[in-house]
Amino acid sequence: MKTPSTALVLLSGGQDSTTCLAWALERFKKVKTLTFDYGQRHRVEVEQAGRIAKLAGVEQELMKIDLFSELSRSALTHHQLEVKAGEDGQLPTTFVPGRNLIFLSLAAMKAYQLGIRDIVTGVCQTDYSGYPDCREEFVRSLEQTTSLAMDTQFHFHAPLMRLSKADTVKLMNELGHLDWLKESHTCYEGRRPACSKCPACILRLKGFKEAGIIDPLEVES
Amino acid sequence: MKTPSTALVLLSGGQDSTTCLAWALERFKKVKTLTFDYGQRHRVEVEQAGRIAKLAGVEQELMKIDLFSELSRSALTHHQLEVKAGEDGQLPTTFVPGRNLIFLSLAAMKAYQLGIRDIVTGVCQTDYSGYPDCREEFVRSLEQTTSLAMDTQFHFHAPLMRLSKADTVKLMNELGHLDWLKESHTCYEGRRPACSKCPACILRLKGFKEAGIIDPLEVES
Repeated sequence: MKTPSTALVLLSGGQDSTTCLAWALERFKKVKTLTFDYGQRHRVEVEQAGRIAKLAGVEQELMKIDLFSELSRSALTHHQLEVKAGEDGQLPTTFVPGRNLIFLSLAAMKAYQLGIRDIVTGVCQTDYSGYPDCREEFVRSLEQTTSLAMDTQFHFHAPLMRLSKADTVKLMNELGHLDWLKESHTCYEGRRPACSKCPACILRLKGFKEAGIIDPLEVES
Repeated sequence: MKTPSTALVLLSGGQDSTTCLAWALERFKKVKTLTFDYGQRHRVEVEQAGRIAKLAGVEQELMKIDLFSELSRSALTHHQLEVKAGEDGQLPTTFVPGRNLIFLSLAAMKAYQLGIRDIVTGVCQTDYSGYPDCREEFVRSLEQTTSLAMDTQFHFHAPLMRLSKADTVKLMNELGHLDWLKESHTCYEGRRPACSKCPACILRLKGFKEAGIIDPLEVES
């Protein structure tokens, strides 16, 4: 039995949010997606999000925001910076402090406008080295804050919160939409076929390997 | 004795935030201001904020955001809509759901960047008819959420939260900077001298009258 309401899924075009979209379609009667165009390092991510929404047959809301280049020196928006994985206890250089705070707040505002109360996000505290705004505790606090801000009870769903990358792959396999991951974008180098050598590609490969499932994504040989 | 830290004051250019600036200068060793340029109905407000920061001798950070025209049909950003006061139990047409959620979240992100932990806002639950994101409960919840989001303890100060307009006028008088209010902008019609007839001008006039203090602002006769 599906919940008889509509959910708004934050769809970045990555593997996690694509899996969340499949999860939401299984659970909610109707699903819409919201993609932020925030000056990503690689625009291909936004384009892939559009392809995935199309594959899933759901509406896509696109929200353009010009905030983060001013607010951060992150590798995700400042193209000249080198991408580095976080070292022990240190935040990776891709960290934009408070980025999810803004994304999820804006998602709640958009949901409010659309009359939607259920918001689905792929944030996950397992694989993310040190992003404080990916933790369960943060998501619950934001749920309360956005609800107070708009005098409306929002429900934030974070189905991947405690899953490993391998578990996320298995979940997508069970949901029967593994093929959508062919369109999901992961590579930090912005390459399609994926480079298979950057930290993001390596993490993705590892997840599929551990799950014992073949990634439909094209990679450079 | 002043708190030996720096505060970031949200300065819109209105009467309340100007009073908060004076309050913060009395209390904190150093003060910076943050003004949002978000496509206000009247740009004069942003310009006046700059004049007030100069009068007070404090730095002004300006943050341009292009979000609300897309996110709302509010009279504050959609220039063609008529400005109406809220009727019983109804939100005024100037209501942008979640606007303070975004302003205060962005302020926390900017504060984080600047190494500032104290944020001062003029939100006030007394005079605002039905803005849920002006309530004390919301501000405390956001304080917790932003702190979790950036793993940093922020302190949000809302010195006007429970004051009437008259009390706010008296506070500014006690702080000795009544003259700064000459530069603060209130008029919904965007006029300087102020029109003295719109709901915002009427509320301001009433506050000064009840406080028994003469407003230094120029008004049309």
